Amino acid sequence: MARNMQVLLASRPTGWVEESNFKIAESDVPKPGPGEVLVKNLWLSLDPYMRGRMNAVKSYAKYVEIGEVMTGGTVGQVVESGNPKFKGGDYVVGSLGWQLYAVSSGEGLAVVDPKLVPLTAYLGVCGMPGGTAWIGLLEYCAPRVGETVLVSAATGAVGGVVGQLAKLQGCRAVGIAGGPKKCEFAVRELGFDACVDYKAGKLLDDLRAACPNGVDNYFENVGGEVLDAAFRVLNPFSRVALCGLVAEYNATEPYGVKMMRSLLVNRVKLQGFIVFDRVDLYQRAIPQLAKLVSQGKIKYRETIAEGLQNAPKAFIGLLKGQNLGKQLVKLT
Amino acid sequence: MARNMQVLLASRPTGWVEESNFKIAESDVPKPGPGEVLVKNLWLSLDPYMRGRMNAVKSYAKYVEIGEVMTGGTVGQVVESGNPKFKGGDYVVGSLGWQLYAVSSGEGLAVVDPKLVPLTAYLGVCGMPGGTAWIGLLEYCAPRVGETVLVSAATGAVGGVVGQLAKLQGCRAVGIAGGPKKCEFAVRELGFDACVDYKAGKLLDDLRAACPNGVDNYFENVGGEVLDAAFRVLNPFSRVALCGLVAEYNATEPYGVKMMRSLLVNRVKLQGFIVFDRVDLYQRAIPQLAKLVSQGKIKYRETIAEGLQNAPKAFIGLLKGQNLGKQLVKLT
Repeated sequence: MARNMQVLLASRPTGWVEESNFKIAESDVPKPGPGEVLVKNLWLSLDPYMRGRMNAVKSYAKYVEIGEVMTGGTVGQVVESGNPKFKGGDYVVGSLGWQLYAVSSGEGLAVVDPKLVPLTAYLGVCGMPGGTAWIGLLEYCAPRVGETVLVSAATGAVGGVVGQLAKLQGCRAVGIAGGPKKCEFAVRELGFDACVDYKAGKLLDDLRAACPNGVDNYFENVGGEVLDAAFRVLNPFSRVALCGLVAEYNATEPYGVKMMRSLLVNRVKLQGFIVFDRVDLYQRAIPQLAKLVSQGKIKYRETIAEGLQNAPKAFIGLLKGQNLGKQLVKLT
Repeated sequence: MARNMQVLLASRPTGWVEESNFKIAESDVPKPGPGEVLVKNLWLSLDPYMRGRMNAVKSYAKYVEIGEVMTGGTVGQVVESGNPKFKGGDYVVGSLGWQLYAVSSGEGLAVVDPKLVPLTAYLGVCGMPGGTAWIGLLEYCAPRVGETVLVSAATGAVGGVVGQLAKLQGCRAVGIAGGPKKCEFAVRELGFDACVDYKAGKLLDDLRAACPNGVDNYFENVGGEVLDAAFRVLNPFSRVALCGLVAEYNATEPYGVKMMRSLLVNRVKLQGFIVFDRVDLYQRAIPQLAKLVSQGKIKYRETIAEGLQNAPKAFIGLLKGQNLGKQLVKLT
């Protein structure tokens, strides 16, 4: 008989996450109550925001308690349903956590069509990361044709969509990524006009060369020194979408941003945002993204770890930038 | 026969401004050419932005060259006019610099009515500082009734208007100022609900006590540690109007802002702005402010230095926060 496997938060990290911060637990497959749905998860999404949920710090979402299942987006298949919105065999996307089986009330679950785009795309380019890229770029930056869009973590699940949407909107797309392999991928595969390797040791000079007309739109995923360098190449009246600060998530002391002056003298609009605040836009973005993907106008790459037991290691690799594109865990 | 006196930039400061950075020069009163206006300045405005103009650094406005007259807002009286828009005896506000007499094409000069509000008000509450407060608060923060508005440099020419406009809009107005005298002035005279003394050594605790429901709108004039502390009390979906960073203008190394994370997790909108980018709003703001002042609904205080030769010393005092309210120089 099938057993459930879960990854629990065992302890809170200080600085970098370690595998010992997680614990693998086995248990019986849960039984759905009246009106509930039992889902067998097929794919788990790993995303930088999960690092924040490991800290007992007030944020936009409740953190994970010690001993609780780690939070995470999933695609799975309905095994048994007492909810009229779902039937056995349906593929569903939701946030059912780092586990093989989950019972849900159905709230936050959506049926998806694997014939439109592959199932895994609903965790990436046609899911939360793609929606994040769409909202941050098109709503908060709102780039105009001919402008320059700069995005950090350019080959990540969010950054890759930002750059491709920028190109589709007639902009110059410039990425920042770590290492020549990622930079080459951004330009050759994703169609960025240029990609700057922040590990090459001359970030500001390279940014100036890659953005000869300055930066009108900056989509920030990283923070730290990358942010300070990007702030130095902002144009007057530019916009910054502040999506993530992954460079800081594992730092024990926050980085001190020195270039606030640039936001003042350039009259910059900076907007911090969380994708799920804008359900209105998200619901419009996902079908558009699915269409662009099915037309081959937006490409994506995935890095796949095999087996739930390897999720902790894959998550640590994600935080260190070892993945290319969307980091997933194949559960079956 | 009358002589002109001018304050020239003699050298660029490193860190704090010193009187030796300025030079007093005398010369003949200039003669207007065809179509030009000769103005005798009566009042000179001293403002923090002038510190930036002393550095040879690219910014939103051209810096002052060594040997040039210092930039500055003025109210004066037309002596002789070849421009049909002005006639002898008219009172005019403009930016004619640190000097007793100036010739102007008339561009940027506006006739003002000393019967509506006192002449000096056109350099303060009904001029650039008042317009700055109006635009930053009402356009970029856009506070709603019942919200909390926090403003730094609360008793300055800008901050004092911000707090009073906040009260008129039905908000809780909280100031940050240096020393008990300024804080008492903010509460007793300007009607702030509370004012926190950043020199008292427990800024964050005092901010939390003064803003029991957090901060929905933050009008920033100061930067540095004050900004970091304010970022810690921001509410979800709050707005920051970034107007000035006066604490940094004399620093040789910029302060490192540690709380960028707050802008992300609270989904903050931050807008850097310069009043003269929004001529549309400015032209609507000034008559409204004049009306509120003439009705006694907005109060203001002035600190007046006597004589142009004392402008450098008064300017240094302004940068050190020694003034209360609008810093002016009486020229005659």
